[in-house]
Amino acid sequence: MNVEDFYRLLFSRRDVRGEYLPDPVCPEVLARILNAAHHAPSVGLSQPWNFIVVREASRRRAVYREFTACREREAAHFEGEQRQRYDRLRLEGILTAPVNICVTCDRSRAGPAVLGRTQQPDTDIYSTVCAIQNLWLAARAEGLGLGWVSILRTDVLKTLFALPESVEPIAYLCLGHVSDFYSRPELEVRGWRNRLPLESLVWLDQWGETSAEDPLLVSVRRVSALD
Amino acid sequence: MNVEDFYRLLFSRRDVRGEYLPDPVCPEVLARILNAAHHAPSVGLSQPWNFIVVREASRRRAVYREFTACREREAAHFEGEQRQRYDRLRLEGILTAPVNICVTCDRSRAGPAVLGRTQQPDTDIYSTVCAIQNLWLAARAEGLGLGWVSILRTDVLKTLFALPESVEPIAYLCLGHVSDFYSRPELEVRGWRNRLPLESLVWLDQWGETSAEDPLLVSVRRVSALD
Repeated sequence: MNVEDFYRLLFSRRDVRGEYLPDPVCPEVLARILNAAHHAPSVGLSQPWNFIVVREASRRRAVYREFTACREREAAHFEGEQRQRYDRLRLEGILTAPVNICVTCDRSRAGPAVLGRTQQPDTDIYSTVCAIQNLWLAARAEGLGLGWVSILRTDVLKTLFALPESVEPIAYLCLGHVSDFYSRPELEVRGWRNRLPLESLVWLDQWGETSAEDPLLVSVRRVSALD
Repeated sequence: MNVEDFYRLLFSRRDVRGEYLPDPVCPEVLARILNAAHHAPSVGLSQPWNFIVVREASRRRAVYREFTACREREAAHFEGEQRQRYDRLRLEGILTAPVNICVTCDRSRAGPAVLGRTQQPDTDIYSTVCAIQNLWLAARAEGLGLGWVSILRTDVLKTLFALPESVEPIAYLCLGHVSDFYSRPELEVRGWRNRLPLESLVWLDQWGETSAEDPLLVSVRRVSALD
């Protein structure tokens, strides 16, 4: 495949909140996107994920009520100008996106001992997040927008979707056609935070070690400048 | 971009253990791959990741020693035929891959209150995993193999790479050119576990609800059959 095309896809993926269109998502397209998620890597090939496709309006309204309460609690963490900026942000598309998806992780999948998970028990959750990122990129490749809503309490989601004891909600996603995509992250456009220079995030061999003349760091600066 | 090409890339990504070639990875290519990781979504645009690029042989030998000890502990979880199968598996490329990368999550990045993280504190780790999946796919797009080694204790990694208190190691990755890629997951080829039918992982509106005639499930079966 064309490497440039792949990077273009990756760079144009956005967290979508306000631009959803009411048009339904074709079942065939949604199936392809879920299949992309299912082809994520998973620890010991455990495939701990499930996808609850939420279309019922009543259930989405219940999630929206929970979001509203959580947003209020979160807002209290910010003060002054930051709080004003927070209040102006659109943070979800729960009712406007035609499809929501609750992605879960079954912590008992594949039995008590999973290859690769005995020393790092949370790698099943990491596998589930890999599936979510696959899903997100597949949606973008299909021209659809996706937004991850994390201003929700997991115990409430667990009750709302009747999850068994061993199953944890990892992500609540909104999905749909969109009027357009921001060209940069919306939080950056709206002055919330900027992208950090990649150079400041790369270390050599141990934490804190760097060298401006190292060929890798020279390349990192060059690649970042093309962004 | 061509959707088929994107799915082909996604389906051909593998967890690589035994097929690394000694050829060095070009700094420019590695920089592009890290830049792809850096363009992952992150909660509140917090970008909590760092990338420790491990090239020193002595440090990789130390990681390899830790792996050997952990593998022995993990092996004890399996018995009989399963144990024999486990013992035959190649599970890492720490010394054979020319580059290793320790991907970390700084839990204090972006201050005490991060937008979108107040109700779900682990979303910073989820963001880091999204970056890892971007990195993995970018490596594949560049024709490079990558393997995630999780048979390592995180507290040992923390010491080995001199991580500050607030920084957690999330993934230890091996990266390099490869002789070839498996066409299916290696654990499947070697009889460890099979891919689950996607149809069994999709629920409608709540856990456990399904309907064979629902257009989505019909499409899921059709898409899976093409795999």
